[in-house]
Amino acid sequence: MAKQISMAVIRRLPKYHRYLKDLLEREIYRISSKELSEIIGFTASQIRQDLNNFGGFGQQGYGYNVEELYSEISKILGLHNTYNTIIVGAGNLGQAIANYSGFQKSGFEIKALFEANPRFIGLKIRDLEILDVEVMEEYIKENNIKIAVICTPKESAQDIANKLVKAGISGIWNFAPVDLQLDGNVVVENVHLTESLFTLSYLLNEKEEATR
Amino acid sequence: MAKQISMAVIRRLPKYHRYLKDLLEREIYRISSKELSEIIGFTASQIRQDLNNFGGFGQQGYGYNVEELYSEISKILGLHNTYNTIIVGAGNLGQAIANYSGFQKSGFEIKALFEANPRFIGLKIRDLEILDVEVMEEYIKENNIKIAVICTPKESAQDIANKLVKAGISGIWNFAPVDLQLDGNVVVENVHLTESLFTLSYLLNEKEEATR
Repeated sequence: MAKQISMAVIRRLPKYHRYLKDLLEREIYRISSKELSEIIGFTASQIRQDLNNFGGFGQQGYGYNVEELYSEISKILGLHNTYNTIIVGAGNLGQAIANYSGFQKSGFEIKALFEANPRFIGLKIRDLEILDVEVMEEYIKENNIKIAVICTPKESAQDIANKLVKAGISGIWNFAPVDLQLDGNVVVENVHLTESLFTLSYLLNEKEEATR
Repeated sequence: MAKQISMAVIRRLPKYHRYLKDLLEREIYRISSKELSEIIGFTASQIRQDLNNFGGFGQQGYGYNVEELYSEISKILGLHNTYNTIIVGAGNLGQAIANYSGFQKSGFEIKALFEANPRFIGLKIRDLEILDVEVMEEYIKENNIKIAVICTPKESAQDIANKLVKAGISGIWNFAPVDLQLDGNVVVENVHLTESLFTLSYLLNEKEEATR
């Protein structure tokens, strides 16, 4: 049986992935956990512990093979797969995500955008058509869509999410400022931008009070 | 001396703020910690503990005064202030943030966008001009800019951040996929979108393996 990995470890994996990719781009193919620790900012013991969750990869006296570790972490993150993806809500944020080529390169293939506002329906973002949200469920079923990105206003997010789940989506990347209440077997990852900005303003104020 | 509040508590505050705002919009002015717990999804004891960090607000047998609690948390989050803000990088994401009126309403007043690409310089997003990044430092000093949002490619983010710090910025909201290395007294809050998406794909794969 697979061991339960903590969310804290899981959230560090993409960071390992990013740093290992940078190393490969700089043609560094071998690295000690101490050196890795210096660039990534986790302790060497933290790194060994994290990676031991997945069987460990380092060799005593050799360190890590960067290519191998990168490829293993990619696989752990599911990046050896491709995911048919749609974006719901074709406002500024939805368009920005559709335009960002990095997601495509990592296997998240954006197939279409959906929108309720008739002004947008029929327009194109890159080569992607903006479709009527009314046909979304049918589209998901017919095109084997795995992931939906919710970029709608908060008022419609829950309703959209219900429809997505009913149509058989596996994962939701939610940018709407609501906590979705969902039954069933769907994975939700939230990006709450306003909460992030408010954290920044908290820290700013705390700092100013400390120096007063 | 102010007590050190943990980041976990701090990151929950914007969520309290959001739920209290919803309650006020629904004209609910008084709530028990048990009811608050049910809608927000933290335990009642967690809520009491969190709020006790800031002096506690509930009254035995009465619960919380929603308006008062909302206003106190707003103040704790620094939302009674306004923050002159700039966006660096006027690509899709920078434009999406400039176009989102919610940030303005919360006191983050976006004053200008800066861009290195001459094709963008001089254009307008809403009533905001896109200025040459060469004049950014001067603009920060002259316009009392507190917060900068970095929406540049990763290659230029560190250089931009160094210039921002030198010009006297207080806080950076960083969307570039790098961990900025900064000296001095600047607060950085990161939004690593790719890491969030990779977490989603990890969880999707984990779920599929569990049901295999």
